[in-house]
Amino acid sequence: MKFVIIGGDAAGMSAASRAKRNRPDMEIIVLEKTVDVSYSACGMPYNIADPDRDIDELVVRSASVFREKQGINLLTGHCVDALDVSAKTVFGSTLENDSFELPYDRLLVATGASAMVPDLPGFELPGVLTLKSLNDGRTIKQFLASNNVQKVVIIGMGYIGLEMAEALRARKIDVAMVDLMSQTLPWMEPSMAEVVEEELRLHDIGFYLGQEVKRIEKNETRLSVVCENLTLSGDMVLVAIGVRPNSQLAVEAGLDLGPQRSLAVDGMMQTSDPDIYAAGDCADAFHIVTGRKTWIPLALRANRAGWAVADNVCGKNVKLPGIAGTAVFKVFDLEVARTGLNSGEASEYGFTPAEVVIKARSRAHAHPGASNIWVQMVGDKASGRLLGVQMVGKEGVAHRINAPVVALHGYMTVEQFSQSDLAYAPPFGPVWDPLLIAANQLIKQL
Amino acid sequence: MKFVIIGGDAAGMSAASRAKRNRPDMEIIVLEKTVDVSYSACGMPYNIADPDRDIDELVVRSASVFREKQGINLLTGHCVDALDVSAKTVFGSTLENDSFELPYDRLLVATGASAMVPDLPGFELPGVLTLKSLNDGRTIKQFLASNNVQKVVIIGMGYIGLEMAEALRARKIDVAMVDLMSQTLPWMEPSMAEVVEEELRLHDIGFYLGQEVKRIEKNETRLSVVCENLTLSGDMVLVAIGVRPNSQLAVEAGLDLGPQRSLAVDGMMQTSDPDIYAAGDCADAFHIVTGRKTWIPLALRANRAGWAVADNVCGKNVKLPGIAGTAVFKVFDLEVARTGLNSGEASEYGFTPAEVVIKARSRAHAHPGASNIWVQMVGDKASGRLLGVQMVGKEGVAHRINAPVVALHGYMTVEQFSQSDLAYAPPFGPVWDPLLIAANQLIKQL
Repeated sequence: MKFVIIGGDAAGMSAASRAKRNRPDMEIIVLEKTVDVSYSACGMPYNIADPDRDIDELVVRSASVFREKQGINLLTGHCVDALDVSAKTVFGSTLENDSFELPYDRLLVATGASAMVPDLPGFELPGVLTLKSLNDGRTIKQFLASNNVQKVVIIGMGYIGLEMAEALRARKIDVAMVDLMSQTLPWMEPSMAEVVEEELRLHDIGFYLGQEVKRIEKNETRLSVVCENLTLSGDMVLVAIGVRPNSQLAVEAGLDLGPQRSLAVDGMMQTSDPDIYAAGDCADAFHIVTGRKTWIPLALRANRAGWAVADNVCGKNVKLPGIAGTAVFKVFDLEVARTGLNSGEASEYGFTPAEVVIKARSRAHAHPGASNIWVQMVGDKASGRLLGVQMVGKEGVAHRINAPVVALHGYMTVEQFSQSDLAYAPPFGPVWDPLLIAANQLIKQL
Repeated sequence: MKFVIIGGDAAGMSAASRAKRNRPDMEIIVLEKTVDVSYSACGMPYNIADPDRDIDELVVRSASVFREKQGINLLTGHCVDALDVSAKTVFGSTLENDSFELPYDRLLVATGASAMVPDLPGFELPGVLTLKSLNDGRTIKQFLASNNVQKVVIIGMGYIGLEMAEALRARKIDVAMVDLMSQTLPWMEPSMAEVVEEELRLHDIGFYLGQEVKRIEKNETRLSVVCENLTLSGDMVLVAIGVRPNSQLAVEAGLDLGPQRSLAVDGMMQTSDPDIYAAGDCADAFHIVTGRKTWIPLALRANRAGWAVADNVCGKNVKLPGIAGTAVFKVFDLEVARTGLNSGEASEYGFTPAEVVIKARSRAHAHPGASNIWVQMVGDKASGRLLGVQMVGKEGVAHRINAPVVALHGYMTVEQFSQSDLAYAPPFGPVWDPLLIAANQLIKQL
């Protein structure tokens, strides 16, 4: 059995390692177009924040460990250009321009996603950078090290943009942000998005919402991001408007596609060709709340899906239930988290949503050091089901979100969730946890 | 309808307030034997830690607010001595020694629990104190303020003892602890209890395990706690060996009892007399994992049970599913949490437990500031069900425990829990959350 894997990051290397553990005799070949494998992409902003840290600290396991200790045939600098599903063969070329072709019994497409760059003038200029691959991170660090960067303009106010704003401020670099949307984090409940915006102001981030970028211009040494009635200049521009799945190979091979042109997979990670699996940022997933397909590229799913592919290639018949769309990130002193659906998404998927937004304290009555914590909770009027939760606050948000995550996996009603015997001690929250306060309020609306 | 409530703390006042909101015309009489109502008992160690804070800061709502703003007939200094269930009447006396009798239509017994004091010589000496009621807290603060307390001996190494050890060290008071058991927190997985013990050593707490206290002696100004081959002397002794339900009234009235002589209640909080409810630290509860009765007196349950009684007295027919035995507390720089059953308890209740203990990191690979986090997870070999989790670590424990809490409420298997789409970002944990690492390991044992 020859198991070929295209892509050597989270999903690809998880699959390779697990398949080798399952079946030490299996022939496993990983084709990675770059020289980087198995790194913590999510850690890049925190590494960039510190000029003294080497970007390669983010490599979780080096290519040599995979090759020598695990016996995986890992071929870096091997780019796959085409896929013949009837001949069960991949075709490609190396960084040295040698071409190769390789037959497979089972194939895993784990080609990831790429940063989106708009097709507008000036986005190709030097100093206009994106952050997705480890090499992107390397390029940014090198650019910051070799240029006297005083100010960076960030296009896009999603979580990568926000994390990078924090990282750059840690290096005392001025940051201006601009986004087409009318609030930061467009999925967020508006009054809670304002809490995030206030945090940006507190850390001297200038930001401009509802602004459409027209082009980037270079004037002497500076770059100018030009909008209708706004021009923002800096020494570097970071384009952080989102990512898209690297699915061109699959498109050309005629595999079925899911949301946003990701590769469509079933619960076993099989594509429309039963010998071809897909996992990681290039593949779609079932959403456990809607039961429908979604594309939310995140690290845990990539690792888990890689394992599932390995198990299925080895005949174990593993089926993943899907994702809840959980995300958490840090914005300066705030923790921001979400899981499940917001009201708009809930309506879109045929639910009859009711929502509450509550503000509570992060510690008990009279306990020193408490701060505010905001919770938005969405339930379905028709079924009483819990549909989603968003939270923001200075402490106790990041891990607190996992309680509703599990409730979503358990298809619990808001009423059932409200009866959870959550932990209480004065340093960590009020007797009625903010989540329970929200649930108790929401029950009245259902 | 006359609704009489015995006891004016968490359960009693929650019931009174909610009944009044449900039915503003209802006659509600609360009989509280002390002068303190509605205070945060769990906050006492943190208040005691700071000599400048008034203990009355812990009062959540004052008696006058209940009386004047909420229209509740709250009678403090009213001690109920007897209960005639056939005449539906309570009998008692006031602090001024006036006797009273009061008929009821519905009665709530919310008499709480009291600190246990062994029947041994010297435990009645001045300076030998307990901590359960607000007045206990007041007494401790006054004792510390008016005596030159250099050292305190704490008998008992449960969470109250540990929280008080931290509080006293914050006041630069030396602490020695002694316990009959062979480890701190006897319910805790032994290697994790050692982590707690190491934390005590780091904060200069001398502790002596497996020591049976024989008596307390007074020698000049100092108190000596005498064991077989050990004598610990200090200026004050705190007895923190546990609490027992205040159920004497109910015993004498012939009501059915539950575990540890608590008042037996059904899911609606009704005792064996359908006109009498019980809630709070004096009442038992169903354990959601075992489905059997248990007595675990904690604040959230008291509040929730008070609400349920009020709703049921008002005809709403509310049934509580029960408790998971969730607890969390802080010991110096550690967070300690548990929910559900440990292996011993699981065996006792007829499960076939398997358990794992894993050590993970509190933040992602290469993220600065990470510390260790230990997770013990117990599952049932027969059914695959998740039975319980314990955790200890410097960060990310207190709220992380709530994910398995919800899984217990949802009767999830370890396999189902392992598929949860938990939150990930480098500052808050590894891609595979410590809970998922534990679940993935445990699945192999099931």
